[in-house]
Amino acid sequence: MARVLVDVMLKPEILDPQGQAVQRALPRMGFDSVTNVRQGKRFELELEDADPATLKATAAAMAEKLLANTVIEDFEVTVLTAGGAPADTAENA
Amino acid sequence: MARVLVDVMLKPEILDPQGQAVQRALPRMGFDSVTNVRQGKRFELELEDADPATLKATAAAMAEKLLANTVIEDFEVTVLTAGGAPADTAENA
Repeated sequence: MARVLVDVMLKPEILDPQGQAVQRALPRMGFDSVTNVRQGKRFELELEDADPATLKATAAAMAEKLLANTVIEDFEVTVLTAGGAPADTAENA
Repeated sequence: MARVLVDVMLKPEILDPQGQAVQRALPRMGFDSVTNVRQGKRFELELEDADPATLKATAAAMAEKLLANTVIEDFEVTVLTAGGAPADTAENA
């Protein structure tokens, strides 16, 4: 079983109200060192075993079609080996 | 400026309806190799510069207090250097 991570973040030029809400809340809780917060989504996918290039291409196609809205979001695919170490990373940015 | 990632995922024993919805949608779109999907949150924090251990401790405290619900969620802190490479990783699992 192969594990693949897809991280989806709003593009830098897109307003992020969730991140802003967190950014405003943190100083009220005593965390004064925060200067910016962006919030996104992480998908952990379990796929049938394949070579890393195929896994990366499959996950990128899933991200393009369903997981991310590429008009306003960037995504990053990380193929994890069975041991959990990053095998390869692809970005659409 | 230091950049820190906080990844928040539901604990494995907690039901994940968002992930299940994605898992059911993918085969209908032609992606037959998917066997499991979990969906979580990713926070990209910009903090004032500090040493990696301090940054990791600060972000972990933010996660404990605000970013994650540690009753049902695990989080992972990754301190990025200025160049963007992972400097260190901490897990609460």
